[in-house]
Amino acid sequence: MSVRQEFLDTFGEIVDVLEAEMGAQGLALPPEAIARVRRCAEYNVPHGKLNRGLAVVECYRAFRGAHSVQALGARERQDAYWLGWCVEWLQAFFLVADDIMDGSKTRRGRTCYYLLDKIGLDAVNDALLLEAHIYRLLRQRFRGRADDAELHADLVDIFQEVTFHTELGQMLDLTCQAGGQVDLSRFTEETLHRIYRFKTCMYSFYLPVALGMRLAGERDPQRYRQAEAILVEMGKFFQAQDDYLDCFGDPAVTGKIGTDIEENKCTWPVVEALKRMSDEQRAVLAANYARRDADCVERVKQLYREVGIPEAFPAYETQSYQALQQQIEQLRPEMPVGALEFLLNKIYKRSK
Amino acid sequence: MSVRQEFLDTFGEIVDVLEAEMGAQGLALPPEAIARVRRCAEYNVPHGKLNRGLAVVECYRAFRGAHSVQALGARERQDAYWLGWCVEWLQAFFLVADDIMDGSKTRRGRTCYYLLDKIGLDAVNDALLLEAHIYRLLRQRFRGRADDAELHADLVDIFQEVTFHTELGQMLDLTCQAGGQVDLSRFTEETLHRIYRFKTCMYSFYLPVALGMRLAGERDPQRYRQAEAILVEMGKFFQAQDDYLDCFGDPAVTGKIGTDIEENKCTWPVVEALKRMSDEQRAVLAANYARRDADCVERVKQLYREVGIPEAFPAYETQSYQALQQQIEQLRPEMPVGALEFLLNKIYKRSK
Ligand SMILES: [Mg+2]
Ligand SMILES: [Mg+2]
Ligand SMILES: [Mg+2]
Ligand SMILES: [Mg+2]
Ligand SMILES: [Mg+2]
Ligand SMILES: [Mg+2]
Repeated sequence: MSVRQEFLDTFGEIVDVLEAEMGAQGLALPPEAIARVRRCAEYNVPHGKLNRGLAVVECYRAFRGAHSVQALGARERQDAYWLGWCVEWLQAFFLVADDIMDGSKTRRGRTCYYLLDKIGLDAVNDALLLEAHIYRLLRQRFRGRADDAELHADLVDIFQEVTFHTELGQMLDLTCQAGGQVDLSRFTEETLHRIYRFKTCMYSFYLPVALGMRLAGERDPQRYRQAEAILVEMGKFFQAQDDYLDCFGDPAVTGKIGTDIEENKCTWPVVEALKRMSDEQRAVLAANYARRDADCVERVKQLYREVGIPEAFPAYETQSYQALQQQIEQLRPEMPVGALEFLLNKIYKRSK
Repeated sequence: MSVRQEFLDTFGEIVDVLEAEMGAQGLALPPEAIARVRRCAEYNVPHGKLNRGLAVVECYRAFRGAHSVQALGARERQDAYWLGWCVEWLQAFFLVADDIMDGSKTRRGRTCYYLLDKIGLDAVNDALLLEAHIYRLLRQRFRGRADDAELHADLVDIFQEVTFHTELGQMLDLTCQAGGQVDLSRFTEETLHRIYRFKTCMYSFYLPVALGMRLAGERDPQRYRQAEAILVEMGKFFQAQDDYLDCFGDPAVTGKIGTDIEENKCTWPVVEALKRMSDEQRAVLAANYARRDADCVERVKQLYREVGIPEAFPAYETQSYQALQQQIEQLRPEMPVGALEFLLNKIYKRSK
């Protein structure tokens, strides 16, 4: 069986475990409550690209020095799959909340969860429950390991640290501009990179690798720092793609309709465009940015085209890819780089 | 200095610690982001009755066998204050999210946080940050204690367990009725008590006491179970008061405008009223419940009056109080009951 298929099968087992816990003595929740939790998990957790979850598995394999995931024992594979799903659960938690805050319409090609019939803002609490599940799962699977007594506490610690960073990043993202006003001077590379680091890099790139390392028994803080340095760069590249696709991607492929221009966001296209704009173009941008009006949005995209953003992006992409490849080569003698290569190849030239 | 004043002073110190962490190397957030976090904490955390936070302090005192809080050492008092504030932070996290989901207007006599200018649904992320702060604070103050190496992990565990219960309770509360429909047969005592147990009792009553016990070094699971049994009963009493005040309290005193009838909630008044209603009255209730219309709400309240709810409530209150006093007396030989008495006296005959 493929790793991907085995990983997907584990999702079903995990939902069954959560469901059993809620029905068992102690909690004994009514059937409709249990059904809602299952539906929330099934709707929101497993429909992404699964890169984050599978990166945990790949990192664990690499740090264990196994030639393939299949060469690991069944229990070891399950450990890695569970931890991978915990990352996907975290992602689901963030996405449900983010779509509410951004007023998004679709996600992964489907209606955003909060827009489903009879869900609405109750989705806030469903998102909180998705977060809580992570700690139920960690506890269920990793607490009190005789061969690694600190494993559970360290995993909880990594999740809490990264969650905090991501929430700070959301705050930076949401508050970069004061309310509805547009202040183009705030769209700087420094601001952009700070938002990227906090809101994306830590949970999407550092987290899966750090978890895989820790599960494999790695405890040298220096190695976590080395991995973090390159993973933060990879995450910036990934988020720049996300910003580009928000504006110029095909919603039929990305599965979501962009809202960054309307939402007054600090993004790669706007920061790059500002570097290339005349004062007149800046004035047009200021007049059309952050308006919930299709013509204004189109005018902004046209400005982006005028200053060559659609040409600048592939150049940036190639350059970033090469720089990241070089960084991986430099790290290769120091530590297993399997997960870094896995992640980089998943994101290079992506269209969704 | 009074315990309350010392406790309040500690709030300022804690916010300073959080602020310093966000400005320090590693995070290095910009000033406006730091200011937003401070504002969110200052607006949402310290303006309640502080019963939960002070109950931690009182429970710790009692389990330490001290005659007064002041008789404890300065460092020990600070430990208890920090832990008390962690409970108040949890409460703030829940209230910000709950007011969004319930569409409430005021809280503690002021505008709900999410309704403030330029906040809106970004409040969801601010709520998440309030939750994350709890684990920053626990880590900062309690990790790696030489005299109690497992203290930090146990405190984290208690918070996560209780948070999960509360979120399940919110789900039960929000989904007791399917969407906008009214099905009076779902308003049963069994349903009501399940909602109470999950959404209120664990975090408002069990949590402060469990934390105080653990800080004092108590590790006998039997004693936690004994305390939980009585605290769940006390929490049900408290939530019945809350439901009664939502309907018949004075918003100028409670600081919040009730929405339970409009929001189709399963509450003490509706469950008690149904026990006393004729078929005709039930039909009128069904026709007027869960409508966002002042006349309908008034008609429901009138029905409550017709079946004697305003008279039934003080009788229930007296009876519950006496039963709880008896339970405390039964427990007295087994363990220090200071926090139980403290909490019961804070809530008996409350009007807010
Ligand atoms: Mg979004
Ligand atoms: Mg967003
Ligand atoms: Mg985006
Ligand atoms: Mg409410
Ligand atoms: Mg509520
Ligand atoms: Mg209420």
